[in-house]
Amino acid sequence: MTVTKRRRAGKPASGAHGKKNTGLKIIPLGGLGEIGKNITAIEYGDEIVIIDCGMKFPEEEMLGIDFVVPDVQYLVENREKIKGIFLTHGHEDHIGAVPLVLPRLDVPLYGAPLTLGLVENKLLDARLPYKPEYHQVQAGMIVKAGSFEVGFIRVSHSIPDALAVFVRTPLGTILHSGDFKLDATTIGGHGTDLAALAELGKEGVLLLLADSTNSERPGFTPSESVVTKAFEEIFRSHKDKRIIISAFASNLYRARQVFATAARFNRKVVLVGRSMLSYIDLARRLGYMDVPDDLLITSAEAEKLSVNRTVVLTTGSQGEPFSGLVLMSKGEHRQVRLGTKDLVVISATPIPGNEKLVSNTVNRLFACGCDVIYEKSEAIHVSGHASREEQKILLSLVKPKYFMPVHGEYRHLVRHGQLARDMGIPMKNVFILQNGDTLLFENDGRVRTGDRVQSGAILVDGMMLGEFEGSLLRDRKELSESGVLTISIVTDGELKLAAPIYIESKGSVFSMDRENMTPDMEQAVMKALDAARSGAVERHLLAGEIRKRVREVLSRNFRAYPTIIPMITSIGAEKPPEISAPKTRSRHRTKNFRKKSQPQA
Amino acid sequence: MTVTKRRRAGKPASGAHGKKNTGLKIIPLGGLGEIGKNITAIEYGDEIVIIDCGMKFPEEEMLGIDFVVPDVQYLVENREKIKGIFLTHGHEDHIGAVPLVLPRLDVPLYGAPLTLGLVENKLLDARLPYKPEYHQVQAGMIVKAGSFEVGFIRVSHSIPDALAVFVRTPLGTILHSGDFKLDATTIGGHGTDLAALAELGKEGVLLLLADSTNSERPGFTPSESVVTKAFEEIFRSHKDKRIIISAFASNLYRARQVFATAARFNRKVVLVGRSMLSYIDLARRLGYMDVPDDLLITSAEAEKLSVNRTVVLTTGSQGEPFSGLVLMSKGEHRQVRLGTKDLVVISATPIPGNEKLVSNTVNRLFACGCDVIYEKSEAIHVSGHASREEQKILLSLVKPKYFMPVHGEYRHLVRHGQLARDMGIPMKNVFILQNGDTLLFENDGRVRTGDRVQSGAILVDGMMLGEFEGSLLRDRKELSESGVLTISIVTDGELKLAAPIYIESKGSVFSMDRENMTPDMEQAVMKALDAARSGAVERHLLAGEIRKRVREVLSRNFRAYPTIIPMITSIGAEKPPEISAPKTRSRHRTKNFRKKSQPQA
Repeated sequence: MTVTKRRRAGKPASGAHGKKNTGLKIIPLGGLGEIGKNITAIEYGDEIVIIDCGMKFPEEEMLGIDFVVPDVQYLVENREKIKGIFLTHGHEDHIGAVPLVLPRLDVPLYGAPLTLGLVENKLLDARLPYKPEYHQVQAGMIVKAGSFEVGFIRVSHSIPDALAVFVRTPLGTILHSGDFKLDATTIGGHGTDLAALAELGKEGVLLLLADSTNSERPGFTPSESVVTKAFEEIFRSHKDKRIIISAFASNLYRARQVFATAARFNRKVVLVGRSMLSYIDLARRLGYMDVPDDLLITSAEAEKLSVNRTVVLTTGSQGEPFSGLVLMSKGEHRQVRLGTKDLVVISATPIPGNEKLVSNTVNRLFACGCDVIYEKSEAIHVSGHASREEQKILLSLVKPKYFMPVHGEYRHLVRHGQLARDMGIPMKNVFILQNGDTLLFENDGRVRTGDRVQSGAILVDGMMLGEFEGSLLRDRKELSESGVLTISIVTDGELKLAAPIYIESKGSVFSMDRENMTPDMEQAVMKALDAARSGAVERHLLAGEIRKRVREVLSRNFRAYPTIIPMITSIGAEKPPEISAPKTRSRHRTKNFRKKSQPQA
Repeated sequence: MTVTKRRRAGKPASGAHGKKNTGLKIIPLGGLGEIGKNITAIEYGDEIVIIDCGMKFPEEEMLGIDFVVPDVQYLVENREKIKGIFLTHGHEDHIGAVPLVLPRLDVPLYGAPLTLGLVENKLLDARLPYKPEYHQVQAGMIVKAGSFEVGFIRVSHSIPDALAVFVRTPLGTILHSGDFKLDATTIGGHGTDLAALAELGKEGVLLLLADSTNSERPGFTPSESVVTKAFEEIFRSHKDKRIIISAFASNLYRARQVFATAARFNRKVVLVGRSMLSYIDLARRLGYMDVPDDLLITSAEAEKLSVNRTVVLTTGSQGEPFSGLVLMSKGEHRQVRLGTKDLVVISATPIPGNEKLVSNTVNRLFACGCDVIYEKSEAIHVSGHASREEQKILLSLVKPKYFMPVHGEYRHLVRHGQLARDMGIPMKNVFILQNGDTLLFENDGRVRTGDRVQSGAILVDGMMLGEFEGSLLRDRKELSESGVLTISIVTDGELKLAAPIYIESKGSVFSMDRENMTPDMEQAVMKALDAARSGAVERHLLAGEIRKRVREVLSRNFRAYPTIIPMITSIGAEKPPEISAPKTRSRHRTKNFRKKSQPQA
């Protein structure tokens, strides 16, 4: 197994322009070592195709960041080579960066009808004037993209219209699994097309890139039909209750199961949550969901029915603040009030990082007096991703010569690589890469990891911030832990105080003991001024000196370390003395991206 | 099942002083609706005994808070009634608040030898001059505490010397399970004393308070002996590797298993991590661990052995920053460098909230080239708490008339209550309470929830902050999301600028686009000054006006909402104009608690 060393992302390789054909390159620009912002470039000669263009939700430590998109500088620089972006399916981690990336590349966009419909909704939400060149594709189709042939194979996932994508290149075929599981008894009968995968395997696959999300899970991911049975059992044994079901809005199969079970048990369905309404509306318009019109009712209509004749399908399965279920659990939802007549079913697993939010929601639901079904053992949710036995089946059908695990944290990629090794793929043919690495198939048949290209994370908080804007996040972290203390000091030309020292604080324990602390701190400032006046400290270092002396007072008495901002104004002077705070500027700043044109991610 | 309504904690009941005997009161002051800060008072007439005195780790949203202790104002007010604090075992959530609470109450402290040893270590760490009155107890003993008789029953848990505590009162016996599981094949042979529980049950138990942590887990918690087997298998199949095992420092059984397995496979053990060394040192001194002296070696000595002759036992199983394992995973540990010759075993489950920290550590360990065993399926860790079948056994042995689930989030308490109901305890005899509720057994035999007493959380960040110091945390949250912007404005008596406006920012996107933003903001300040001069805005509202106008500029152009602190200094004026920030003061401020005397929690 070839494992590349961890290197700092973002070290640009030498310019890719004007180079001779150096073989076939596979360049993951996102999605490796992380769950999110999936994007992979496949390059041969002067032609590139891109698979997926996703965003990622911010890590906990990315304070105040709204979302994260991949750094696509490499693609911008090679814009003229790009033949198109091919989307595997419509989840945010595969399409979420399209509104930010596509206008900069201006290339054709390929995807299945539902996937493109979701992209179009995103562009509308972002109020972007940009009109993409859409190309609808479907399983079984072959698309010419330059000298590449791009084909699509139906896979089963937790959203309809999921595809695996293969790219026939002069050096061989690359297959990207997309997000998949096998589930032969999925809702609507659209299981993964094993025959097509076998056929491609027979034709010969040079390289397989496959979904690693569940590579730590033994066995098979249960079928969606397990959930159908669980729902039926729940409806049967709670005939006297209103049933509230919370699920991912994008999980349209789950919605279909809710509708079918409700119809069978003669209940009506109320939809709650903006994204729930929008997904189901789109799916119905595009013909992905055949719902009798009288099944769905408004909450006003529901009030005329007895509670045990209704089902509420709502957002909030991840405990998201302001989502339907969370507002209900807090007694703040305008339409749905919960009580002892209610049963809540949380039909989802917390995404890593959301465990506490979900747990707190369950606690509040119990405190409302509802009954709640949320435990794993209740079979009310199944994953959308293949477990280890399914990953083995994919490998044995496709029989790739080379293997690159994708879509996973580093540990998932390693476990998936070990699995491929156990399936008989030689270690040297398994590549565990990092974002920005290049897997290079040379024309003479050699295979190796080539030069790195620029890659990384662009944080979006109103503006697009490069990865090196880390100082902003460091400052926020410091502020979040100890607050801020600002000191206004007005002096005359001789550095004598021209007005009283004025101290303000926010979020600091200082504000709890202001009276006791203020005299010591004023004295610290005076001493710093004395030192500057006497020449013991240079004048342009005065702010630093004040910071140091005030920090000493706070730490000695309090062990408190707020951010200290001295604001020194010298009367008569043209400009305030320079504060020695380092000015940090992004090395990869792209452009201002003001929030009014921000995609609803 | 009697469920009390959620009420705001901290509403004090009418003074408890000088009242007549109103029956027997059980008052949980912490540990209900949460995992942590366990403390329960049992009161009859003018006598009180207290069970446990724990702390809690801060929630994610408690920015900058070091730890949380229970509000014990009720106990302080009833100090003279208290006959003693009885500790069930030595975990932080049961003893961690002793250094802060005990000096204020100054009452005798009862506990098993290891538990008291751990308390003494905590007091030493906190450098408190206070000397407690220690009373060593052990299973089987009966202690007179006023007119109460307090007894102890051996239970199995993830730390030695764990006890259930029962209190014989004039109205009947109260049994508190402490933290327990049944595990008959525990390390050292100290399983839960089922016979003693049965005997107490035969004698008659009025009320059982029992550990609810695992009330969502079906079946039995596996025995520690399962881990022994897993360790042996791992040592057997990794004979060529160094083995690094990470576990809770307090899990002394796990340490014993590591020592025994290492000795069997002829390996030496290196201990890493301050708390690991301190726990094992204490356990050896008190005779809880019989380790041959030559088994433990220093890392310097280990370097002389071949790597596959050593085992490293380290802290860091929760991904704690600066812990042994985390430093190793970052390549920053001075003694232990990890590589392909290493196998890391994480012998613990992430505590809720720590999942991401652990996951990131595993990713880094893989990137070091180590192999890592961490999956649940590997049986390298078992819980210290009883699962549902064990909870049933406890209930059927003790046969309490009344039942109060303790030690759990609300959902755990509800599930435990439902289990008791299924075991035949009438719903009306099951009490799901909140911290600060009183369960009242009246002398005439009636049982009901009585008046609430003051309770809540004291946050510790250098000072002890009351629960109502929430403004501090709100300010920190605002700062963490958008940073801070400070504006220094120096005016003369007529509110004309006497020096240039001076703007600083930390953690705000403003600093990324300072040049473009500054003129607009200066203009906003000037307009506010104009408004104040013309009388359109009153002078004492000037700061608010500046804040409003600057916020408009930022939100219009940027959708950025930093905390804005205007610092207005008027030259010649005696004092700066009053800023209209509300002064928040704790209603429950206890005292300054400066960090130099802070316990190492």
